[in-house]
Amino acid sequence: MKFFELKNGRTFLLKLEYGRGIIEQLVEFLFAKKIETAYLSGIGAVKMAEIGYYDQERKEYVKRKIEEPMELLSLTGNVSLRDGKPFCHVHVVLGKDSMIYAGHLFDAEVFACEIYLVELEGKVSRSYDEQTGLYLWT
Amino acid sequence: MKFFELKNGRTFLLKLEYGRGIIEQLVEFLFAKKIETAYLSGIGAVKMAEIGYYDQERKEYVKRKIEEPMELLSLTGNVSLRDGKPFCHVHVVLGKDSMIYAGHLFDAEVFACEIYLVELEGKVSRSYDEQTGLYLWT
Amino acid sequence: MKFFELKNGRTFLLKLEYGRGIIEQLVEFLFAKKIETAYLSGIGAVKMAEIGYYDQERKEYVKRKIEEPMELLSLTGNVSLRDGKPFCHVHVVLGKDSMIYAGHLFDAEVFACEIYLVELEGKVSRSYDEQTGLYLWT
Repeated sequence: MKFFELKNGRTFLLKLEYGRGIIEQLVEFLFAKKIETAYLSGIGAVKMAEIGYYDQERKEYVKRKIEEPMELLSLTGNVSLRDGKPFCHVHVVLGKDSMIYAGHLFDAEVFACEIYLVELEGKVSRSYDEQTGLYLWT
Repeated sequence: MKFFELKNGRTFLLKLEYGRGIIEQLVEFLFAKKIETAYLSGIGAVKMAEIGYYDQERKEYVKRKIEEPMELLSLTGNVSLRDGKPFCHVHVVLGKDSMIYAGHLFDAEVFACEIYLVELEGKVSRSYDEQTGLYLWT
Repeated sequence: MKFFELKNGRTFLLKLEYGRGIIEQLVEFLFAKKIETAYLSGIGAVKMAEIGYYDQERKEYVKRKIEEPMELLSLTGNVSLRDGKPFCHVHVVLGKDSMIYAGHLFDAEVFACEIYLVELEGKVSRSYDEQTGLYLWT
């Protein structure tokens, strides 16, 4: 197993802006603060979302747009470098009551969203992995 | 986007008591330890739960009681000040097998529950937000 | 409520190996690094999984194998000592789109998996709890 031992850097709570994308805002923040590696966790509510799952045989994402208001029940992810730039890898569980949608987050429009972000000091980079077709840590 | 840079304070693992409320016990602990800001994450099992989702148009929570034993599959949340007191904002995913319920946690009766709590040093307060009808960080 | 105040130890990002078990690899890592207490959170995708829920009346786990590729939407857990050895307690939410399975993780075969692991310094041990039939922190 590959592992990276990292130092804790800065810790943030983020209040994302209403009506804009989660990933879009996270990436903006990472660039502004020069954060390259991080752990992310959050909750909130979204107005719509585009999520997907990875078809492990075809090696491609199957995307789906969900055009309705939902709770953001869990957002979990990390930040590392891809092509030298901070890249967010985020999975979400969305829904209300017993109607749940979940997947890899392409983006979602924020209603309200609160994120815990821990910067990790040390370089972790992604590169193309033949076996999975994904960009994984190397 | 609004953000708060915070220092890591104390770190705790909490073993909640059987038969009492999750939120009730968390609030008690926050007062006892004088914790104002924190990140929370946990797992466990509950005997029943009251959860809800926010109706973004009507600007009110729709609540539902689920009167059955379930796994606590993920609990994610934060603590910040509301009216000068520590306030827990927590979302949960509950269920067993493929029967999942999830939402904003009003409270749930603990069967067994293990929480990771990271105190964050710095003041983060909620106040009423016109646009969403929620108490958000300001 | 019982609580443990712990110091932050080392912080890791783990890239689990393709085709091997999540828990199996975590335990190997904990032994190699002499980690006794930790918090865990991650995302990824699995090729199959064995999960379960605890029947609170019968005091036994009901297990189920899910023999299909799924996203690992959230993995949340902790490490503490059981019988003097590091023991992983992990819950997962798995699935794709609106087909969700979730539960206590017995093990799952990794397609790709990225874990955030925070070592916590201080001893937390499990022992048998009569009331629940589980091994809980004491």
